[in-house]
Amino acid sequence: MDKIEHIGIAVNDIKEANLVFKSILGKLHYKTEYVESEDVLTSFFDLGESKIELIESNNKDHTISKFLNSNKSAIHHIAIKVSDIYFEIQRIKKEGIRVLNEIPKQGADNQLICFLHPKDTLGVLIELCQEK
Amino acid sequence: MDKIEHIGIAVNDIKEANLVFKSILGKLHYKTEYVESEDVLTSFFDLGESKIELIESNNKDHTISKFLNSNKSAIHHIAIKVSDIYFEIQRIKKEGIRVLNEIPKQGADNQLICFLHPKDTLGVLIELCQEK
Repeated sequence: MDKIEHIGIAVNDIKEANLVFKSILGKLHYKTEYVESEDVLTSFFDLGESKIELIESNNKDHTISKFLNSNKSAIHHIAIKVSDIYFEIQRIKKEGIRVLNEIPKQGADNQLICFLHPKDTLGVLIELCQEK
Repeated sequence: MDKIEHIGIAVNDIKEANLVFKSILGKLHYKTEYVESEDVLTSFFDLGESKIELIESNNKDHTISKFLNSNKSAIHHIAIKVSDIYFEIQRIKKEGIRVLNEIPKQGADNQLICFLHPKDTLGVLIELCQEK
């Protein structure tokens, strides 16, 4: 467990959110990326060794849209950078915490990712990620 | 804006939450602290240059308890470390974002803190903090 890789914030209007976070952080997002496997549009801001990831879905049935409900935005997940995602998955399972992705999947920003089961993490959505 | 100082997670049972986050992060929290000014019990885990802060309130009328509602825990806020909190407050106000603490107040873990008005940050609770 190396660091916070990013904090994922679900937003209903990524253009508006980019401007708000530019005002807060005092700088522009450094990239936008459409993640085909998740059908979401993302943008990223650097913040020290971590990132802020904004996530927008145009699909009303998408988990991001359902999570947002009527909110303009909400903190969706914490992503933790690990050096060896396969090792950490096995370690965490031995601790009694289930994972949603036994085989890590492709995430945004060139990462291999695995979500932990929120029922085993008190409801907080936590993602492990390892740079590819 | 230097880095993510911490992510604040509201929990309804900090002892249970300490064990869960020990399992996830693979290490113990390094401190617990009762914050008298906020009437909350906190615990902290190191994670790279950032921290995870767990926050419990025993008062049912406390904002933390209301925020949690019936959830076991939920991500409550993002705290961003700044070098000069007075400068950043003025800069952010010029961007049209109101602050909740014109005069920074004492936070946990020896920090001067100021919350941004969530109505101006799309509902995401963001705290600025500067080490004293």
